Amino acid sequence: MSDRPTGDIEALIALMARLPGLGPRSARRAVLHMLRKRTQVMEPLARSLAMVAERARECRNCGNIAEADLCAICANPERGNGEICVVEDIADLWAMERGCGFRGRYHVLGGTLSALDAMGPDELGIPALIERLQPEAVGEVILALNATVEGATTAHYIAEALAPHGVKVTTLAQGVPMGGELDYLDDGTISAALAARRKL
Amino acid sequence: MSDRPTGDIEALIALMARLPGLGPRSARRAVLHMLRKRTQVMEPLARSLAMVAERARECRNCGNIAEADLCAICANPERGNGEICVVEDIADLWAMERGCGFRGRYHVLGGTLSALDAMGPDELGIPALIERLQPEAVGEVILALNATVEGATTAHYIAEALAPHGVKVTTLAQGVPMGGELDYLDDGTISAALAARRKL
Repeated sequence: MSDRPTGDIEALIALMARLPGLGPRSARRAVLHMLRKRTQVMEPLARSLAMVAERARECRNCGNIAEADLCAICANPERGNGEICVVEDIADLWAMERGCGFRGRYHVLGGTLSALDAMGPDELGIPALIERLQPEAVGEVILALNATVEGATTAHYIAEALAPHGVKVTTLAQGVPMGGELDYLDDGTISAALAARRKL
Repeated sequence: MSDRPTGDIEALIALMARLPGLGPRSARRAVLHMLRKRTQVMEPLARSLAMVAERARECRNCGNIAEADLCAICANPERGNGEICVVEDIADLWAMERGCGFRGRYHVLGGTLSALDAMGPDELGIPALIERLQPEAVGEVILALNATVEGATTAHYIAEALAPHGVKVTTLAQGVPMGGELDYLDDGTISAALAARRKL
């Protein structure tokens, strides 16, 4: 055993193999690739990882990843336009930022309401969301939760929690995705798209 | 742009995405996972990468990855049993070490003969292999090259280069892989297995 990929490299492979989307085999391939390209790949990656590991933290305001007390979005005054988009987690926030021209700020729940995982309103930072309404002069809260049962439940809960604060609560439209072929869409999506049909 | 995954994290994702088997999407997932598990995953990985990047080098003797002048295998006197197994690259060496009980040493070519990639005998360290025969009292050279055209060409070249040195040259047997179903095997393998059939 000690004769094959030497200790340190074994350890590195084991660590890489724990990343989502990588298994032992692909981890080995990745490590080999890095070993072949030490200066171009491995060293920059090591530096970058160390830097992020040291700097990255949670944005005090929205739960996004930040390198300071506030994330780049909360720190950007132009993004304080009175709109807050509520997302389940940071991957969704990144997806929103990639996709659309949303110019407001976010609130990252870090999950959905779930009795099993003991995720209650407090864990999801819903009180924190409510506290943001006043200071950030929020006029609209856009619920961009996943179109799952958990997402829908959470969305309804948040909508009710926000009701007393007289803020407009909206949610992403459901319908046929771009380039979607009806034939391949589930019935739920089709009926939702039909119910939400609009005049051309 | 500067509003989404902040600079450092963007850079980290871009670096991860360059690893084989990872794309932008899976790199994002991996980085998010690491950010969520900073102490358990990200920091150990950063340390491990830095350590390997600093220590790993090529074994002076066989071309394996080493943390010293000699790799663990060449440094291990018990492995100096007069057998050298020639492999195309380190991944193959690891595969041999995983799979079988080979107790000799290796010689890593780092590729196959190829006019296109300007890989000649010197690039493949074939002279170096010949120089190892005497000092390591090599009695047998086992060619464990991939069963590809390039592998076969290279194997023949090495066999001829070794002929004058009166060393036994063998190659891995070809045949039906363990658990292989004839129905799914290519004709080449079947006919090779038939030609090499042995008495039960």
